[in-house]
Amino acid sequence: MFKFEGSNILSVKQFDRESIEYLFRIADIMQPYAHREKRTAVLDGAILGNLFFEPSTRTRVSFGTAFNLLGGHVRETTGLSSSALAKGESLYDTARVLSSYSDVIAMRHPDAGSVAEFAMGSRVPVINGGDGANEHPTQALLDLYTIQKERHAHQAGIDGMHIAMVGDLKHGRTVHSLSKLLSLYKNLKLTLISPKELSMPAEIIALVENAGHQCVITEQLEGHLDADIVYQTRIQEERFASSEEANLYRGRFRLNQAIYTQHCKSNTVIMHPLPRDSRADANELDNDLNLNPNLAIFRQADNGVLVRMALFATTLGVQDIITKYDKSVHWYSNKSETVI
Amino acid sequence: MFKFEGSNILSVKQFDRESIEYLFRIADIMQPYAHREKRTAVLDGAILGNLFFEPSTRTRVSFGTAFNLLGGHVRETTGLSSSALAKGESLYDTARVLSSYSDVIAMRHPDAGSVAEFAMGSRVPVINGGDGANEHPTQALLDLYTIQKERHAHQAGIDGMHIAMVGDLKHGRTVHSLSKLLSLYKNLKLTLISPKELSMPAEIIALVENAGHQCVITEQLEGHLDADIVYQTRIQEERFASSEEANLYRGRFRLNQAIYTQHCKSNTVIMHPLPRDSRADANELDNDLNLNPNLAIFRQADNGVLVRMALFATTLGVQDIITKYDKSVHWYSNKSETVI
Amino acid sequence: MFKFEGSNILSVKQFDRESIEYLFRIADIMQPYAHREKRTAVLDGAILGNLFFEPSTRTRVSFGTAFNLLGGHVRETTGLSSSALAKGESLYDTARVLSSYSDVIAMRHPDAGSVAEFAMGSRVPVINGGDGANEHPTQALLDLYTIQKERHAHQAGIDGMHIAMVGDLKHGRTVHSLSKLLSLYKNLKLTLISPKELSMPAEIIALVENAGHQCVITEQLEGHLDADIVYQTRIQEERFASSEEANLYRGRFRLNQAIYTQHCKSNTVIMHPLPRDSRADANELDNDLNLNPNLAIFRQADNGVLVRMALFATTLGVQDIITKYDKSVHWYSNKSETVI
Repeated sequence: MFKFEGSNILSVKQFDRESIEYLFRIADIMQPYAHREKRTAVLDGAILGNLFFEPSTRTRVSFGTAFNLLGGHVRETTGLSSSALAKGESLYDTARVLSSYSDVIAMRHPDAGSVAEFAMGSRVPVINGGDGANEHPTQALLDLYTIQKERHAHQAGIDGMHIAMVGDLKHGRTVHSLSKLLSLYKNLKLTLISPKELSMPAEIIALVENAGHQCVITEQLEGHLDADIVYQTRIQEERFASSEEANLYRGRFRLNQAIYTQHCKSNTVIMHPLPRDSRADANELDNDLNLNPNLAIFRQADNGVLVRMALFATTLGVQDIITKYDKSVHWYSNKSETVI
Repeated sequence: MFKFEGSNILSVKQFDRESIEYLFRIADIMQPYAHREKRTAVLDGAILGNLFFEPSTRTRVSFGTAFNLLGGHVRETTGLSSSALAKGESLYDTARVLSSYSDVIAMRHPDAGSVAEFAMGSRVPVINGGDGANEHPTQALLDLYTIQKERHAHQAGIDGMHIAMVGDLKHGRTVHSLSKLLSLYKNLKLTLISPKELSMPAEIIALVENAGHQCVITEQLEGHLDADIVYQTRIQEERFASSEEANLYRGRFRLNQAIYTQHCKSNTVIMHPLPRDSRADANELDNDLNLNPNLAIFRQADNGVLVRMALFATTLGVQDIITKYDKSVHWYSNKSETVI
Repeated sequence: MFKFEGSNILSVKQFDRESIEYLFRIADIMQPYAHREKRTAVLDGAILGNLFFEPSTRTRVSFGTAFNLLGGHVRETTGLSSSALAKGESLYDTARVLSSYSDVIAMRHPDAGSVAEFAMGSRVPVINGGDGANEHPTQALLDLYTIQKERHAHQAGIDGMHIAMVGDLKHGRTVHSLSKLLSLYKNLKLTLISPKELSMPAEIIALVENAGHQCVITEQLEGHLDADIVYQTRIQEERFASSEEANLYRGRFRLNQAIYTQHCKSNTVIMHPLPRDSRADANELDNDLNLNPNLAIFRQADNGVLVRMALFATTLGVQDIITKYDKSVHWYSNKSETVI
C-alpha cells in the first residue's frame, strides 16, 4: 500500500485500490467532525501553507476548512503576481523557503508540472490542488469517494457500475483523472457523451479499455442516460481560443427533471465537479433538479472536505489518534441533519 | 423577541426594541474580552466564513477579530473575480457549497439583495456585512449601540434625544439604516443637514415621522448643531456619476473645534461611520477634534467588535456560556485603559 | 537596554549591542518550536494584525507563521487599493481603528516613513515589515542573527570579521540596515563590490568608518571574495527608471561553485536576502551552489521565523513564560533534521 505519512500527493497515479479504500475509511471517520457532532484538536498548533497561485475559491476554502476541522492554523497565499516568482525566483527556492513556514502544503498553480517541481524543494508534504491542464487529484478522489458512498446507499459497489460522462471531456481535467482511478476497479461501462471536437483523449480511453472496461462513445444524450451515475461537466470556456468558440458548445447537453424522468433510471445519481454554469445559454443542470434526491452535487462538495481531512491526517500520520483529541461542540449547528 | 439562534441577520427591519436591547446587553458582556482583561474559548474550533466579495478592510477585519476573540477560526475570501460566480454559478449554488465549509458566514457583496439570496441556499446563519446600496445592518447596530453608551455616560437614554445627521444623506446607507432603528425609540428630533440634491430619501423621512418623531430639513450647518449627537458622513464619491459631480459637494460641511465651540452643546457627541475623508478639499472632521473627548468615532469602531461578537454569540447560541470558557490574558496589553 | 515590552520596532537605530544579543538569546529559545520538537500555546487567543499594504509573500507568511508558532491567531490585509486609505483616510485614523482589532501589528507599506506615522496612531506595538526605500529592520536582524550563528558554527564571533557585500548596494535596503547594525560590533572589514553607479550611499560608509571599521570599495568581484561572509544581492529592478536601465547591471556579478572554489575561502558563508534571481540573464547565485554546505540562504529564511517569534514574544512580554505553555507535537515532521 502507498505509504501516506510524509509523502506528497501529486497524482492519481500514486494510488492503487488498496490505498484508495484505506483513505476512504479514514474519510468516513471524519464525518462526525464535519457534521459538528464533535470536534478534534489533533492538529492544534500545526500549520497548513495554503498556496493558491491560481485562484479557486471553492478548493482553497475546502482545504483550509479541512485543516481547521482537524484543529490546525492556515497561512494563505493567493495570486501569482504577489509572489517572488515574478522577481525571477525558481520554484525550488520558493519551495525551500515557504515549506519552512508550515507542516504541510496544499498548492494550486496554473502550470502543468509545477506542483511536482515545487515538491522537489519542499521540506514538508505537498498536496496538489490542481496544476493547470495536468492533474487535480483531490477532486478525482472526492468524486470517487462520492460514487462509493452513493452506490453504498443503493446497496451496491463500484465494480460493475455504469457511468456516463457528459460535456467537455477534452478539457475537463476531472473526468480524465476520475477515469484513471475508475480503471482500478472491475468490469465498468463508461459512456462518453460529448461533441466530437471535445471528446475524451484517446490515451485515456486506451487506459480504460486496457484495464478491461467497456467504453461507449457518442454525441447523443438521449438513449445513453440509463447509467448508475451521470457525471455532467461545464464547457471550460477559459481553455478555448475564444469565447465564441466555446459558445458553439455551451448549452449543447442540458439535463433537467423532465429529461431525467424520461431517460435516466429511477435512481441515477447526478454528479458535477462544480461550479455548474446556470446562465440561460448553458444551464447544464437545471435548478428543477435541486429537489431530486439523486442530485449529489452538493454532497460531492461536502465529501471534498472529508477526503482532504483524510489526506492531511494520513500524510501527517495522525489518522489513528484523532479521537484521542475529541472535544464537544457546544454551539448551534444543524449539520448532522440529512441534506438532499 | 427575535429568535437569534440559527437565524440570518440580513436587515435592520428584523429587530424590535426588545431584541436590540437584549443584543446590546450581550455586547456589554463582550467588553472585558475585547479589552483583554480576560479571554474566552467558547467558539474554539468553530469556523467563520468571512466572504467579502466587495472589499472593505475595516468591516472584514472587524468581523474576523470578533470571531477570533470568541476563540474561533476564520476562513476568508476577498474579491469577486476570484469567485466561481464569474463562471456562471448561481448565488444559491455558491451558498450551498461555501456554507458547508463553516459554522456561520459574514458576507459583503456589491449587489443589493445578494446577501438575502445567498442566505436562501446557506445551511448556516448568514450575517449581512453590506449588500450594495441596500443595507449594512451591523453598522447601524454599532452606531445605535454607540449612541446608547454615549448617552448613558451622560446619564441619559435614547428616548427624547436630538440627533443631527450631516452630509451625503442620499447615498449614505448608514444614515438610512440608523434612522430606521431610531424610529423604534420615542420622541426623537432628527435634524437632516445636506445639500438639497443629497437629501434624505422621502420614504425614510416618512417612516421616521410616522413613528412620531420630528424631522428638521436644512442646508445650513450653523444654527443646527446644538444636538446631543452630530452624525457626520463622507460624500460617497464612488456612488456618483463622476468625481467632478462628487467634488461639487465635498468639503461643503466641515466640522472643526472652532465650529464645535461656537455651535455645538458643551457635550455634543460627534460620530462618523468612517473612513473620514481627511484630504484638504474634504476634511469633514478636522484633526483638531482628535483631543475633544466627545469625538466618539474611534469608540464606534471599538463598539463594532462588541456588537459583532454579540451577533456571533447569539446566532450560534453560546451567549449564556461564554464565561464558562474564560481564560487569562498573560501578554502585554493596555486596552483596558481609557482611550479618548 | 532597549525596553521591548509594549514598544514599536521601527528602525535598526533603536538597537544597541546589548539589546541585539538579548533578542538573539530569545530567538535561540524559539528553535525547538520552529523545528517541531515541541510547541507552545503562550499566545493562544492573541491576535496579530498582519497589514501588508505592499505585497511580499515571504515576509508576510514569515510573520504570520511566527505568530501561529506562538499559538496566536492572524488577521491579514493585503494590498493598498482595498484599503480605506484610498477614500482619503489618514494613516492615523487607519491605525486608531485597525489597532483596536489586534494585540500587535506587523506592517509593510510602499511609502518611507509610513509605518512610523501609523505607529503614532496605534494602540498596540507595531513592527515594521518594510516601509519603501526606508527600512526593513526584521530583515537586518535576521541577517545579523544568521551571521552570528554561522560564525558560531565556525567557533568564531562577529567582531573582527570580514564581510563582502555584492551587487545593487545603492537600492538594497537590506545592506544599508545590516551595515548600520554591524557598526555596533568591533574591528570589521567591509568589502563593497558594486558597479560604480550602484555603490553604497556615502552616509552609510561614513557611519561604518566612523565606528572604526575598514571599508574597501571596488567594482571587481575577483580578488575580493576571500571574506568570512559574502552577502550577494539582487538588482532591484523595481527601483530603476526602466527595466532597460536595470538590465545594464543584471548578471554583472555572478557567483557559482567554480568561482567559489577559486576565489573564496574554504568556509566562506554565502548569504542573500532572497528572492535570488535565477533567470539566465541574472543568475546571481548559481544552483550548483545548492549542495555547498556554506550556502546559508535558506537558513536565513528559517532564522527569520525565529527572530520574528522573538520580537513578538518580547514586545508582548511573554519571553520568560513560553515553556510554561509547552505542548507536544504528535504529527509527522522531519524539521529537526539537519538541512544544508
